[in-house]
Amino acid sequence: SRSINLAVIPGDGIGQEVVTEGLKVLSAVLPQDVKLETEEYDFGARRYHATGETLTDADLDALKRHDAILLGAIGDPSVPSGVLERGFLLKLRFAFDHHVNLRPSKLLPGVATPLAGEPQIDFVVVREGTEGPYTGNGGTIRKGTEHEVATEVSVNTAFGVERVVRDAFARAQARPRKKLALIHKNNVLTFAGHLWTNVFNKVAEEFPEVTTEYMHVDAATIYLVTQPERFDVIVTDNLFGDIVTDLAAAVSGGIGVAASGNINPSGDFPSMFEPVHGSAPDIAGQGKADPTATVLSVALLLRHLGYEAEAARIDDAVAADLAERTGKPARSTSEIGDALAVRVAG
Amino acid sequence: SRSINLAVIPGDGIGQEVVTEGLKVLSAVLPQDVKLETEEYDFGARRYHATGETLTDADLDALKRHDAILLGAIGDPSVPSGVLERGFLLKLRFAFDHHVNLRPSKLLPGVATPLAGEPQIDFVVVREGTEGPYTGNGGTIRKGTEHEVATEVSVNTAFGVERVVRDAFARAQARPRKKLALIHKNNVLTFAGHLWTNVFNKVAEEFPEVTTEYMHVDAATIYLVTQPERFDVIVTDNLFGDIVTDLAAAVSGGIGVAASGNINPSGDFPSMFEPVHGSAPDIAGQGKADPTATVLSVALLLRHLGYEAEAARIDDAVAADLAERTGKPARSTSEIGDALAVRVAG
Ligand SMILES: CC(C)[C@H](C(=O)O)[C@@H](O)C(=O)O
Ligand SMILES: CC(C)[C@H](C(=O)O)[C@@H](O)C(=O)O
Repeated sequence: SRSINLAVIPGDGIGQEVVTEGLKVLSAVLPQDVKLETEEYDFGARRYHATGETLTDADLDALKRHDAILLGAIGDPSVPSGVLERGFLLKLRFAFDHHVNLRPSKLLPGVATPLAGEPQIDFVVVREGTEGPYTGNGGTIRKGTEHEVATEVSVNTAFGVERVVRDAFARAQARPRKKLALIHKNNVLTFAGHLWTNVFNKVAEEFPEVTTEYMHVDAATIYLVTQPERFDVIVTDNLFGDIVTDLAAAVSGGIGVAASGNINPSGDFPSMFEPVHGSAPDIAGQGKADPTATVLSVALLLRHLGYEAEAARIDDAVAADLAERTGKPARSTSEIGDALAVRVAG
Repeated sequence: SRSINLAVIPGDGIGQEVVTEGLKVLSAVLPQDVKLETEEYDFGARRYHATGETLTDADLDALKRHDAILLGAIGDPSVPSGVLERGFLLKLRFAFDHHVNLRPSKLLPGVATPLAGEPQIDFVVVREGTEGPYTGNGGTIRKGTEHEVATEVSVNTAFGVERVVRDAFARAQARPRKKLALIHKNNVLTFAGHLWTNVFNKVAEEFPEVTTEYMHVDAATIYLVTQPERFDVIVTDNLFGDIVTDLAAAVSGGIGVAASGNINPSGDFPSMFEPVHGSAPDIAGQGKADPTATVLSVALLLRHLGYEAEAARIDDAVAADLAERTGKPARSTSEIGDALAVRVAG
């Protein structure tokens, strides 16, 4: 019989609330014969304040034994900026080699967008997750003085770029429109830019059916608001991906519905799925958070583990739920979760 | 008697066309007693193909003798990506220490925006122009092999950050709303992020009337499309500034109306003014380019040289012209320039 052994990291702020709903929908959608085991881990601000720890080697060993990880949100104003981001979120992405950071953007019917007109938005960003300016490479001299110099080093390797570019081409090949855009800034960041561009062009030869284009990251932000329908699959660097996926989320319904997967396609380590939004401490504990992004992240998780039919049921349930929201009174976090659980079960 | 000794760099593509109109409006707005001298320089793709040169020491010596520089656009598909950007545009910004890259965004009445509703947009971005990932620092090993490693080094100094942050605070102080937002990514780029944040907080103490906020660059792209009215003055790093100003231009009327100044406030070197748009080779030579962004760049140039009344006349003329465009047939580049010249003279 089949089983899913899931690590659950509720985290900070609204993390606990949205994860509860994500698990509710997961339980509801899974067939009877699939045994779901979950283990909860207490990472984030509370643990950091109590122990000074963010993510230890023992934690990594424990997490490694799971099939996948579901994360709510990590981050709290009581912790200095960077401590939990570098010490937990990025540490986990790097330790488990989550090099494919997958972020779909689809504007579903009935969902509000800040854009005028009725844009058709349905693309997916494949963001590199283990290189670029995210490696923590760099340093500071003469800190706090008027002679301080601080550097940040973006590290890019043919190995790292090629595997994520290849993943993106394969995804583009599998989609009806078969389009792939590379986003970089190769006219200024010429060292990294040439590497990305050359690898992209080389891998393109293996995918003759995929239509490719290149655009600078600054121009890409313009297209994302003026011609978002232009995009099918995007592949990009870690930092550019961070920026364009937040913008992509904003134009396609907001971070309340933006899901993401931090994927290690090799399966050597568990992949991690999380909503794009943060811990939103201002609304935590009030039942106001929209769990939809977490539920959609559960769909990505299921798809990653091979449960395509169940993932599609969740996507459909979310689409139906969103389509009926307009004009209705706002529901609580658990009411939305309940409604989605009913839909996927039914 | 007063005089302006202007270096004019038409450049590539539509550059020549838009600069012609910029100069037309400049001549029309200047009082009789101001002597305008212009000298044209042939930089860009043509010169590069003919001589292999982009910007020589002799060129810099010549340009240095002018009061200011007006640039159309540089860049052509016949030149490999990066050659003219690094060899001309960035070389000039660095050589003349253009550390304040000023990019106002104002959505004028009658101007189309991709955003729904009627957003109120009126802010200015102060982008650092001589540091960050733009220094050309970095390199490549094992180029072209599967073991290639390419790095890009972002260099940030207390000196460089403080002068641009101070400039931004002074601009915020001089505006009615007195708000300043720092945009960075200090939770990931912790070395540079701490430098920027600490310097920002330190300089803030000297400007108690200015309300400040910090936001990550990814979140900033969301606010730029969901709450653009939130912004008054923004200060940011060279690369983040590149990205957010294109997005800002897109939401506030498009790059057809986005002006910029590459300013050296010390006056040791001439400042350079240019439209944010590129050379648009696809429409070059057809009289289709909108010269408005160049004309607004001329206004920034005049304001920089102390001709505030004339700058305001140009801004007003552009606002009036844009307000009357809706529903009218498209005009040619020179027709728009003529109309603006008439307005500023009248
Ligand atoms: C919190 C932060 C480290 C993270 C990132 O920059 O990747 C977040 O913005 C994201 O997009 O997942
Ligand atoms: C052309 C390029 C070098 C330039 C930049 O990145 O600064 C442009 O995008 C800009 O914004 O002026």
